[in-house]
Amino acid sequence: MKGNLIVGQSGGATAVINSSLAGIVTEAMGNSEVGEIYGMLDGVQGLLGENMIDLRRRLSNPAALEMLKRTPAAALGMCRYKLNEAERERLLKTFQKHNIRYFCYVGGNDSADTCHRMAQMARESGYELYAIGVPKTIDNDLPDMDHCPGYGSLARYLAIATQDSGIDTEAAALVHPVKIIEVMGRNAGWVAAAAALGKTSPEQAPHLIYTPERALDPQQFLRDVRHIYALYGHCVVVIGENVKDRTGKALGAHGEPFFVDSFGHKYYPGPANYLSNLVMRELGLTARYDKPGTLQRMSMACVSETDLQEAFMVGQAAARLALAGETDKMVTLLRQNGPNGEYGCVTGTTSLLNIANSERKMPASYINQEGNFVTQEFLDYARPLIGGPLPTYFRFDRKQLVAHP
Amino acid sequence: MKGNLIVGQSGGATAVINSSLAGIVTEAMGNSEVGEIYGMLDGVQGLLGENMIDLRRRLSNPAALEMLKRTPAAALGMCRYKLNEAERERLLKTFQKHNIRYFCYVGGNDSADTCHRMAQMARESGYELYAIGVPKTIDNDLPDMDHCPGYGSLARYLAIATQDSGIDTEAAALVHPVKIIEVMGRNAGWVAAAAALGKTSPEQAPHLIYTPERALDPQQFLRDVRHIYALYGHCVVVIGENVKDRTGKALGAHGEPFFVDSFGHKYYPGPANYLSNLVMRELGLTARYDKPGTLQRMSMACVSETDLQEAFMVGQAAARLALAGETDKMVTLLRQNGPNGEYGCVTGTTSLLNIANSERKMPASYINQEGNFVTQEFLDYARPLIGGPLPTYFRFDRKQLVAHP
Repeated sequence: MKGNLIVGQSGGATAVINSSLAGIVTEAMGNSEVGEIYGMLDGVQGLLGENMIDLRRRLSNPAALEMLKRTPAAALGMCRYKLNEAERERLLKTFQKHNIRYFCYVGGNDSADTCHRMAQMARESGYELYAIGVPKTIDNDLPDMDHCPGYGSLARYLAIATQDSGIDTEAAALVHPVKIIEVMGRNAGWVAAAAALGKTSPEQAPHLIYTPERALDPQQFLRDVRHIYALYGHCVVVIGENVKDRTGKALGAHGEPFFVDSFGHKYYPGPANYLSNLVMRELGLTARYDKPGTLQRMSMACVSETDLQEAFMVGQAAARLALAGETDKMVTLLRQNGPNGEYGCVTGTTSLLNIANSERKMPASYINQEGNFVTQEFLDYARPLIGGPLPTYFRFDRKQLVAHP
Repeated sequence: MKGNLIVGQSGGATAVINSSLAGIVTEAMGNSEVGEIYGMLDGVQGLLGENMIDLRRRLSNPAALEMLKRTPAAALGMCRYKLNEAERERLLKTFQKHNIRYFCYVGGNDSADTCHRMAQMARESGYELYAIGVPKTIDNDLPDMDHCPGYGSLARYLAIATQDSGIDTEAAALVHPVKIIEVMGRNAGWVAAAAALGKTSPEQAPHLIYTPERALDPQQFLRDVRHIYALYGHCVVVIGENVKDRTGKALGAHGEPFFVDSFGHKYYPGPANYLSNLVMRELGLTARYDKPGTLQRMSMACVSETDLQEAFMVGQAAARLALAGETDKMVTLLRQNGPNGEYGCVTGTTSLLNIANSERKMPASYINQEGNFVTQEFLDYARPLIGGPLPTYFRFDRKQLVAHP
């Protein structure tokens, strides 16, 4: 049926969320069923105020589309907003008013929930709407798919950053031999695990990786660091920001809150801050920490070309599905390797409800027995996702000293 | 005179310190006066244990030299170590024992001090030694030169990171409209200032830059943020980690220490942590902060090709000077633009003592009247240092909304 299409972006930034937008618009532009192509500003929250722009006009120039593809973060703006029943009704009226029949929403769990509820309400009220979710999250924790668009670029960034930070820590071993890198990833360890992808030998960073799938006992942590330091003279640790201890308490909450707000809410330092102080106090080793924060989400300088292409592909697939009359689904990425084992990936679908209600943690087989590193199985899984090879750095063999006559 | 050459690296990492090492070795290899070419592991501290490697052998392959040039951080390892008189005597004996006549030391103020004292001691004891310092610091605070190797790459990294973080903050303005980025730079603002190099319009990040040259009153900071937020709906702040208030107190020390060690030393959060809490409490705006830490020092993914070349050039110049019989000097970089104003740079020299005893802050003309941003004069100064053009990103004009019929 002929109608207009709207696309929105939602949730945290990635390096490739705009590539998905470009994929949706490219597919929609090539289909004569589509009338106008609208972009909602700031997701459904912005659409409550009918803040829409005309993407057919704004992206008519192929060079603009190409530039958009390589622009990190959400060009349309995003929100984290849970619509209530009345607001959903308002949005449906807006869809009707503008004859919007195709709705593509790029995001993670919460956005899938929003998209699902809109699809459901349209169905119940007899309004023909084809609502399709487009996956996006650096956390890589959406179910029913091999991996999530955005993760490959995050993984490439962290692999490189950890190598950089690692050779610095090695070079500075006499000054600050312990480095802790605190990374994102919500309740799953995919993000922290990615830091291992640049490692090519045991003495190289990272030496320890702690993911939220396993509780971390601060005393065990100290034993691990002491062991690595004894072996190599330096130690690089990567830790997920939500790693907890055996009682389920956030690691940073072991120390004192550094700030209490006017409501009495306590703010604790992150685990890296807490653990680096612990290392200094208990092991007498100087420790530093890096917290790349939002920078890790969306570095275009470290984008994975594979991720960029796949993000475009899921965008195209979403528009194609909507136009084929599918609704209440999310596009997925399914691995389908070639005949010689070369990496390949195709799109599939799952129900939006599946996505909305679950998160996918790392399987046990991706984390080692000790709970302090990833396994080869994880590395084999993740390596194809980061695009081309990583930079290789020069290293002197420090054991080949000039003989002292 | 025929003799052996030794090279060491010292102080914090940069992306291009190994390019200087490659420059020194390349020049030394091409000169028949030079016998052996030694690398000291971990600077003078390692040399106290005679930890030296044979660079002529290790770098005989041109591909190895090329790879070394593009490896961040100090491949030879570094130290922060102040030699006492007895240790300097020991090092001089080591020089004599190995017939080391040429000494190139890559580093900043403290390394210049070490290099100067070794030159002085050699002179006083009648040992012919040619000791030359090679400048290196991301802080850009060495006197007597236009800029320091390492700064251009740091500047490129921060300009890109601030753009990335900025478009994310703009996209997420409904969720976390204030972003504070805490950067390095010791007592000077060169590092923080570099964040402005990617900005091409007033609404773009960064909106506020605070450097240690100016005291920052927290109340003025809040007024600045409120003003920018009112204008653009979001605000990106860059702040040097050592910015102080009018009484000379570190900004983070306004809050509670989050940790007190067993010696009673208090550990305070950095200014970004403190100020983001202040924004949330006083302005009711959600604020986040990034602290890229050591990652900003040495990202090879964001290296400035200009910086990489100049670092090689100062290395070559240092070896050339030593071999020409100069001593107790540091190589400098002097701007010498071409006839049509195109950027150019040549090497010069200054005394090591000058470098050891002073730091170069930003001139007043590089900071605006209000003390919350840089001037065009700074941008003109710094832009040629970051190498090629920065990536340009796509932006929708959010004012061109679809007319609501």
